[in-house]
Amino acid sequence: MADLRDGGSSLDAILAPRSVAVVGVSRERGSIGAEIFHNLIASGFQGPVYPVNPNADWVQSVKAYASISDVPGTVDLAVITTPAATVRDIVDACAAKGVKGVVVISAGFAEGGGDARAQQHELAERCRRAGMRMVGPNCLGVLSTAADVRLNATFGPINPPAGSVAFATQSGGPGLAAFDYASSLGLGISEFVSMGNKADVSGNDLLERWRRHSATRVILLYLESFGNPRRFLELAREVSHEKPIIAVKAGRTSTGARAASSHTAALAGSDKAAAALFAQTGVIRVESMRELLETASVLALQPIPAGRRTAIITNAGGLGIMAADACEAHNLALPKPDEPTMDALRSFLPTAASLGNPIDMVASASAETYEKTLSTVLASDAFDSAIVLLVPTAVTDPVAVAQAIVRAATGMPKPVVCAVVGVHGAAEGRTHLCDAGFPAFAFPEEAVTALGHATDYGSWRATHAERQSPAAAVNQDRVRRILADATARIRATPEDAGNDWLTPQEAHALLEACGIATPRSAFVATAEAAATAADEIGYPVVAKVIATGLIHKTEVGAVRVGLRDAAAVRAACRAMADRMDVKVEGFQVQEMVEGGTELLAGISRDPSFGALVGFGAGGTYTELLADAAFRIAPLTRDDARDIVSGIRSQALLNGFRGHPAVDRDTVMRVLLALSALADDNQNVLEVDLNPLVATARKGIIALDARVRLRRP
Amino acid sequence: MADLRDGGSSLDAILAPRSVAVVGVSRERGSIGAEIFHNLIASGFQGPVYPVNPNADWVQSVKAYASISDVPGTVDLAVITTPAATVRDIVDACAAKGVKGVVVISAGFAEGGGDARAQQHELAERCRRAGMRMVGPNCLGVLSTAADVRLNATFGPINPPAGSVAFATQSGGPGLAAFDYASSLGLGISEFVSMGNKADVSGNDLLERWRRHSATRVILLYLESFGNPRRFLELAREVSHEKPIIAVKAGRTSTGARAASSHTAALAGSDKAAAALFAQTGVIRVESMRELLETASVLALQPIPAGRRTAIITNAGGLGIMAADACEAHNLALPKPDEPTMDALRSFLPTAASLGNPIDMVASASAETYEKTLSTVLASDAFDSAIVLLVPTAVTDPVAVAQAIVRAATGMPKPVVCAVVGVHGAAEGRTHLCDAGFPAFAFPEEAVTALGHATDYGSWRATHAERQSPAAAVNQDRVRRILADATARIRATPEDAGNDWLTPQEAHALLEACGIATPRSAFVATAEAAATAADEIGYPVVAKVIATGLIHKTEVGAVRVGLRDAAAVRAACRAMADRMDVKVEGFQVQEMVEGGTELLAGISRDPSFGALVGFGAGGTYTELLADAAFRIAPLTRDDARDIVSGIRSQALLNGFRGHPAVDRDTVMRVLLALSALADDNQNVLEVDLNPLVATARKGIIALDARVRLRRP
Repeated sequence: MADLRDGGSSLDAILAPRSVAVVGVSRERGSIGAEIFHNLIASGFQGPVYPVNPNADWVQSVKAYASISDVPGTVDLAVITTPAATVRDIVDACAAKGVKGVVVISAGFAEGGGDARAQQHELAERCRRAGMRMVGPNCLGVLSTAADVRLNATFGPINPPAGSVAFATQSGGPGLAAFDYASSLGLGISEFVSMGNKADVSGNDLLERWRRHSATRVILLYLESFGNPRRFLELAREVSHEKPIIAVKAGRTSTGARAASSHTAALAGSDKAAAALFAQTGVIRVESMRELLETASVLALQPIPAGRRTAIITNAGGLGIMAADACEAHNLALPKPDEPTMDALRSFLPTAASLGNPIDMVASASAETYEKTLSTVLASDAFDSAIVLLVPTAVTDPVAVAQAIVRAATGMPKPVVCAVVGVHGAAEGRTHLCDAGFPAFAFPEEAVTALGHATDYGSWRATHAERQSPAAAVNQDRVRRILADATARIRATPEDAGNDWLTPQEAHALLEACGIATPRSAFVATAEAAATAADEIGYPVVAKVIATGLIHKTEVGAVRVGLRDAAAVRAACRAMADRMDVKVEGFQVQEMVEGGTELLAGISRDPSFGALVGFGAGGTYTELLADAAFRIAPLTRDDARDIVSGIRSQALLNGFRGHPAVDRDTVMRVLLALSALADDNQNVLEVDLNPLVATARKGIIALDARVRLRRP
Repeated sequence: MADLRDGGSSLDAILAPRSVAVVGVSRERGSIGAEIFHNLIASGFQGPVYPVNPNADWVQSVKAYASISDVPGTVDLAVITTPAATVRDIVDACAAKGVKGVVVISAGFAEGGGDARAQQHELAERCRRAGMRMVGPNCLGVLSTAADVRLNATFGPINPPAGSVAFATQSGGPGLAAFDYASSLGLGISEFVSMGNKADVSGNDLLERWRRHSATRVILLYLESFGNPRRFLELAREVSHEKPIIAVKAGRTSTGARAASSHTAALAGSDKAAAALFAQTGVIRVESMRELLETASVLALQPIPAGRRTAIITNAGGLGIMAADACEAHNLALPKPDEPTMDALRSFLPTAASLGNPIDMVASASAETYEKTLSTVLASDAFDSAIVLLVPTAVTDPVAVAQAIVRAATGMPKPVVCAVVGVHGAAEGRTHLCDAGFPAFAFPEEAVTALGHATDYGSWRATHAERQSPAAAVNQDRVRRILADATARIRATPEDAGNDWLTPQEAHALLEACGIATPRSAFVATAEAAATAADEIGYPVVAKVIATGLIHKTEVGAVRVGLRDAAAVRAACRAMADRMDVKVEGFQVQEMVEGGTELLAGISRDPSFGALVGFGAGGTYTELLADAAFRIAPLTRDDARDIVSGIRSQALLNGFRGHPAVDRDTVMRVLLALSALADDNQNVLEVDLNPLVATARKGIIALDARVRLRRP
């Protein structure tokens, strides 16, 4: 059965069955069912395959059965290819027969919307009740190359070699697009699943399986949507510490401008959320199918790079320059060789050679030169990896050079990637390298890009040890009480009153309960009371109007700053009240915090990805810089650190034009508190702390907070 | 001879010779000279090829000559492969023989530095005096596929088919890397030149030739340096209006932090300069050899897109999503089909098909479906181009689909690009399409990227009609006088006095002569005189200390703003003078311009690219935003417009937080004036107008100007 290090998985019935029935196999080749049946037989499935066809005694020389219940003996997996309307009854018959897993190839379900969506849901329910797992509907099929399984239950014209790459895709097309180039790169497949509409089996299920699947060394995902991003966050982070996950997230086309009522929400976006999810989980995000497979070949065939220092070895200066440019773009360092390495290289390279980095051995380099140079480089402590480039010339036999590279690099703990360019035997050189486990590409940039991704992955593993969110200094009991009271208030008022925002008093109390510093404040009913409160707080103060639905106060003249005595406070409150065209409910009087660096932090909820915690340039910089970084809640401390170091405006944090440097630890505490708030209180939809001011004397203080709740 | 529309070029002797001698052909194959001789014979050169070897009567069955002078009859082109030390005498012998062009393959010249650089210079001089053009030294050779030439004077294992792509490369390696993939894309070569050290023939010479070369439709450049960027600017802009130039600029590795003494210079950088040069000239800049060739195949084989609206046609939803994502990344629009087109599509597509964009014909699509759908799309006014995607299934024959695509698209005025993915016949489908003149790639993203570049090129041609710099309102006589006086002053003082900067008076006068507005100013010697001047200017005023070498005044307390009466001016000047530890030479009193948007403009000189004119966010935003755009002088009006629209901080220009919108026309006038200043006065090294303030009432005013001259 499946080669899982610690026992089976519920998907064994689908990916490691002992017997398979294909329901809907017509007599003629060319139909989907007939192609699947043919592939199962041709791939040498290690067990019986039963064709089911009510109108034929045999198909493709194999006895057929009129229905699943007529099949003798047990059936682990049923592959269903009949029209959508017939699938429900067949699934019921499978359940009655004791089938353990089904793959529904048939289209005509949720992808069409409407009724078909409900039918798909019902199908999944029936499978669940019968204890059957289901792949699909609307998929290309599943495949396993395990020697004791050899299952090709797809209708694609594919027959990939066995190997260490597991591949899950939603649409079938990208799967078909992958196999040809994968095998030319020397990549074999362990298991392949086309998930289709994901009514039951999802990417998360496959991650769980492949995490423990010893034949799988690298996991590839071609995703169009995330069913349960929260589960993906936890699971993929765990898996990435054990084996690399490489993903293409397709369908990034912008969903159009969403109505966003806070700055944080306006700065967040679905693609930022997906980017955050990948960054948090160590999943390597690539932009194209080619990059997916090229990166997979480095991670499947070579050791993970221990660092960013690489050496370029070439027999043509121009190729070295191409690779060096790509290294700069991928943030790979090209240190000069150390002195002993230089001496060693000098002992056998011609004087025309360049000993810097790129190491240009010049066009006369023989296979032996390649072997010596690569051995010398791999032995040096100055490099974590090597990039070997070759353009065949009259004096170089590409296959001989490939053999030399293999001799020098086999068994070494550092990754080696190659590019063999040109016409004269270049393809043969690449094939020899790929077959021997050394990724080899047609252009230098491709070798560097793939190595760059592998290096990023190694670096993520080294710097993201934390897997849990730390306890935040949030008084959750008090938070829940404040939110419950506010919810009761909101419930009591009509929907269009615009009061699903917390009042200033509620928001102030919420921040205190979250351990986020606020200016000294008083909430009063009259201008006179405001003046008295200001006397107690101490001058100068800020006065703000309190009114239901009044969110962006500055813009409508509902804030006065720099009030220096009681008379000024009284006059300001009266003047503001006169100007308002909404009902003034009172005033907030605040200690005035002067100077400091204006930042912003908050919470936004993405319809697909859940709560995002964000941080960036705030106050007057908000629109101008439009600079914020996000991670999905709950955050680890590593995530909080990555948010702070992820904004472009590091100049703002490092102490800009005489401002002191911002205390990053305190910012991280604020972000972790927001994460805990969002994660434990799903009814908090948006939080916008803007400006969040970093001051030298008073620390980091939220001068204004807007908090929106989900209507009960 | 060469197929030049309006007569020959001085490079005819090299690329369309009637006879060739190869100097240095040893008896054994494998040496460079022998390989070149072999390639010339094997490619069927249309004239005699004479091997020159003092020690052999014949080589490769052809009679050899002891020296070039022994060759009977005329020699148009001599290819020299002998060691560097022998080349000079051979060049002299060629000159005596009346040879018209030489290609020096031999290495050992400027690439090694030192003496060899001088030897290369001398070689070029000797050729020039003899009226011979020279390619190289240190190169791979030259090639022409013209039917009446058929010249392969390279030592690479290459033999590209004839076609419409001309290719110039500095290093040979990238050239060799290109041919294999080029021919698999159906791209043929018209001429190929490996320029090596470019001692004589440069990329600019080849641009001039290929501009008028009717067989050449697309020009490819693989550049590591620009010998004469100014000439390239003028020439490439002209050529790009006639045929596309696609370039890889290699060697972008940062040159390290340069000592920069002005903000403009600090924001400029060599890669920004190269990017500016490409943007100004319409040269399509690509990042890799693969992208170079894929883009070339679209431009060589297909019409230039008239707009950004494209349609994706696919038989697999997932491929459509991949392509749609890539379209978003390349700024290609995917409008929905118009109603008549929708109706037409509905009439033959199955109900399961998706009629939006991507148009998903679903997996059952036959060759006929492809033909009808593509014809319908190409007939619609809603689209400027089409992207056709195919994954072969059991019911699709890729070659039949390819033939259908060719039938639908042949002769249409809109470009069609294809991706055929997968295993089952995909390669055959691609080959059929490429052979028929329709670019076809292995992955959807590649089709979109190539189409995106072609679309950008079409859009550049449509929006960059201007080829000349407009006359700027600069009084050049007065400018020259001011600069001459300043130069005399600088010459009279020691080099380390820090006075190669204009004095405030000189800078003020220079801006006036350039038609750039400045605040009302007076330059006085004493605090008392400052007070008197301020009375005349009107309050409030700004007072600044004048002292040699005092450039960044704010940082050392040499500026006081907001002075509201004579007493304040007097006191401020005295206080500043007391604090200075340099000799105070006087004071500048300025009208105080309050409010406005802080911008920056200036001139910087790049050692390779010449004068750059820049513009961006200024004042307090300078470091925070680090946002500036550049173009190389002289600017056209289009260039000036592109600079203004090229900065990220468009929010700043559009009227940010209550500021009025910045008058872009006035900014353009300032930039064109700086361009004229830089272009006519090569001794102006740096200009930094920061802040350049855009005000509602007073227009755009340079509040501070720092101008540095080249020491005479």
